[in-house]
Amino acid sequence: PPGPLRPPGLLLAPCRAFSNNKILVELDESSGVATMKFKSPPVNSLSLDFLTEFCISLEKLENDRACRGVIFTSAVPKIFSSGLDITEMCGKSMEHYAEFWRAVQEMWLRLYGSNMVTVAAVNGSSPAGGCLVALSCDYRIMVENPKFSIGLNEAQLGIVAPFWFKDTFVNIVGHRVAERSLQLGSLHSASEAHKIGLVDELVPEEKLQEKAAAVMAQWLALPDHARQLTKSMMRKAVLDRLVAHREEDIQNFISFISKESIQKSLRMYMEMLKKKK
Amino acid sequence: PPGPLRPPGLLLAPCRAFSNNKILVELDESSGVATMKFKSPPVNSLSLDFLTEFCISLEKLENDRACRGVIFTSAVPKIFSSGLDITEMCGKSMEHYAEFWRAVQEMWLRLYGSNMVTVAAVNGSSPAGGCLVALSCDYRIMVENPKFSIGLNEAQLGIVAPFWFKDTFVNIVGHRVAERSLQLGSLHSASEAHKIGLVDELVPEEKLQEKAAAVMAQWLALPDHARQLTKSMMRKAVLDRLVAHREEDIQNFISFISKESIQKSLRMYMEMLKKKK
Amino acid sequence: PPGPLRPPGLLLAPCRAFSNNKILVELDESSGVATMKFKSPPVNSLSLDFLTEFCISLEKLENDRACRGVIFTSAVPKIFSSGLDITEMCGKSMEHYAEFWRAVQEMWLRLYGSNMVTVAAVNGSSPAGGCLVALSCDYRIMVENPKFSIGLNEAQLGIVAPFWFKDTFVNIVGHRVAERSLQLGSLHSASEAHKIGLVDELVPEEKLQEKAAAVMAQWLALPDHARQLTKSMMRKAVLDRLVAHREEDIQNFISFISKESIQKSLRMYMEMLKKKK
Repeated sequence: PPGPLRPPGLLLAPCRAFSNNKILVELDESSGVATMKFKSPPVNSLSLDFLTEFCISLEKLENDRACRGVIFTSAVPKIFSSGLDITEMCGKSMEHYAEFWRAVQEMWLRLYGSNMVTVAAVNGSSPAGGCLVALSCDYRIMVENPKFSIGLNEAQLGIVAPFWFKDTFVNIVGHRVAERSLQLGSLHSASEAHKIGLVDELVPEEKLQEKAAAVMAQWLALPDHARQLTKSMMRKAVLDRLVAHREEDIQNFISFISKESIQKSLRMYMEMLKKKK
Repeated sequence: PPGPLRPPGLLLAPCRAFSNNKILVELDESSGVATMKFKSPPVNSLSLDFLTEFCISLEKLENDRACRGVIFTSAVPKIFSSGLDITEMCGKSMEHYAEFWRAVQEMWLRLYGSNMVTVAAVNGSSPAGGCLVALSCDYRIMVENPKFSIGLNEAQLGIVAPFWFKDTFVNIVGHRVAERSLQLGSLHSASEAHKIGLVDELVPEEKLQEKAAAVMAQWLALPDHARQLTKSMMRKAVLDRLVAHREEDIQNFISFISKESIQKSLRMYMEMLKKKK
Repeated sequence: PPGPLRPPGLLLAPCRAFSNNKILVELDESSGVATMKFKSPPVNSLSLDFLTEFCISLEKLENDRACRGVIFTSAVPKIFSSGLDITEMCGKSMEHYAEFWRAVQEMWLRLYGSNMVTVAAVNGSSPAGGCLVALSCDYRIMVENPKFSIGLNEAQLGIVAPFWFKDTFVNIVGHRVAERSLQLGSLHSASEAHKIGLVDELVPEEKLQEKAAAVMAQWLALPDHARQLTKSMMRKAVLDRLVAHREEDIQNFISFISKESIQKSLRMYMEMLKKKK
């Protein structure tokens, strides 16, 4: 809520919306809760533009004293986010790969380290980087639709989830489940994801918003300062590991992704996706 | 059992009791099992006096070759221990805060690192520091009374559980459950605590003593030396972390607790407790 | 499958077998799956000879491009492996203890770090070192026979599982279950082992081979390179810890095992085993 540090004379509407190209952000000032709705059809893939917009929007909310929590959800039917945009990783320059990977890192560092309460309202499938977005929140609610799946399935594409995807995953499902799921590149059905703890709760689609709001209210009932320090204590080690190895991680990504064998398998995967349509 | 290292001429009664002000200690020499009963009404809060007595009693037992295991339980109805005594943290001098916090650390270092088998027979509610006492034992049995709750609820009071409370908790319930429970400051019902692994077993109140004795006998059936080395191997990393940062942890506590905002919320909490009576 | 790097002119039969004294190895070149069958009666104990043969066989397969996965099982009824051969640890020279322990380390380093898919088809009891063999695989299937048990029961014998046994165990069952199981030296029934995640699946004895083949096929469906990098990412920290402390670990073993008290309890244990027969 507005406090003494807010600049004088600033008048706030009860609900503000700032829509960009790919993400719709709505802030309800009465509750202090914002919603970030991914609206980048067909599959909300995490392109460089999407990631840039994501980081800017998140930073705005982080610095907005009227905002204490964010709900992430999709405006595209059946898909939460399909993960990293493969076209950004295929046939581009080294500089582009570096810029793209830095944006992926930035997204995770801001989201996993956010001081706000973050709730993923997963209303569609969420493979790879899409799963990472959900994993980085404080709480995950998923629609109990047997057609929706979620998981870090990188291995299926012949690529490897980076160590910080892995660390985030291990923190949630434990070492054994992560080892098996990552090696098999498993996409888990909603009910399986719930069983292994990848998501915290399942709801019917029509109850999702209501449930997300209720969970958010429960988390916001806690004093911000103590909750933020506790969250930081739990996540700092894993965040620090990427911060300490950020450039190295970018170099690793570039040298891996620019291999001809990897480029070839990504091209084949894109062909397959095109034919599916 | 008495061995060659015991000083000659020492005659031992089959059961010795040494009661101090706040803790009743009984040692059954036939089984080698001591019981430490908290009797500091109204709520067995961990005051400086209580902690000092706790450490002295535990050290005595640790050095007593007739003692191989300790059962911790409460002589106060409905409460195991209410945790750190807030009056020790409110309106006192820096020196007092330092002395108090060192005593809290000492209690945990001795209990979590004890060579004896330690069983918590949790016969009442056990928030915050009371929960830590239970978490630091080798095994936790709780009375299945829906009115009894247990958890590290510091965040509810606007304060933050120290990193070694967190480490102890993570070692038992895993990273994800700990992250959520600590951020929400959750107090878990007995059945919920059992479900998340915070306690190992639930029993009806009248079976508690019998069950604790049976569990103790099972653990004492193992050769002490191998069991102790194994226990140390499992807990050393977490114990060493506090030992390495002990003074820093005291300074952190002092600077946090002496903040006016924290003092104010602790005073409000104490007022609330008084009105409840 | 045979590729350009295979030396020219090498003709391969569809199924090759190389049997040594203690382990029968069969490689099915059509599937790329080898089976290592322990046939060292009465209990497949891990003697120095057994371990040497194990390492040589595994290395051969690792370097054989026709082989992508290995199934480990027993040709001896009712026992998978009884673990380290106690006669190697009793009444021998320091040099012998060192050589033996180095072989135990070598077995684990090669198995836990294998690039191949490794499946344990546990068709009998598997205490101590036998359990470690299973724990080091990628997947564990156990026959659901209530008479078969599995676990790291070292503490029961008055000895301590080394830190890398512990690390491997914690990676699978988590810290709390490992702490309790290791301190009690628990041997878990098949169904209990499944419940705590020590084994991934239970099957009737007659379905074991079929199930192991099906699991292997599922894991081999993934591209090798991504799967291997992912496996290494999950296991590297724990493997590196032993590599960094290997000589120290050998010295620890020697000084522990050569203690008169330990030698005495191992002799008593061997006497007990002889009487059992």
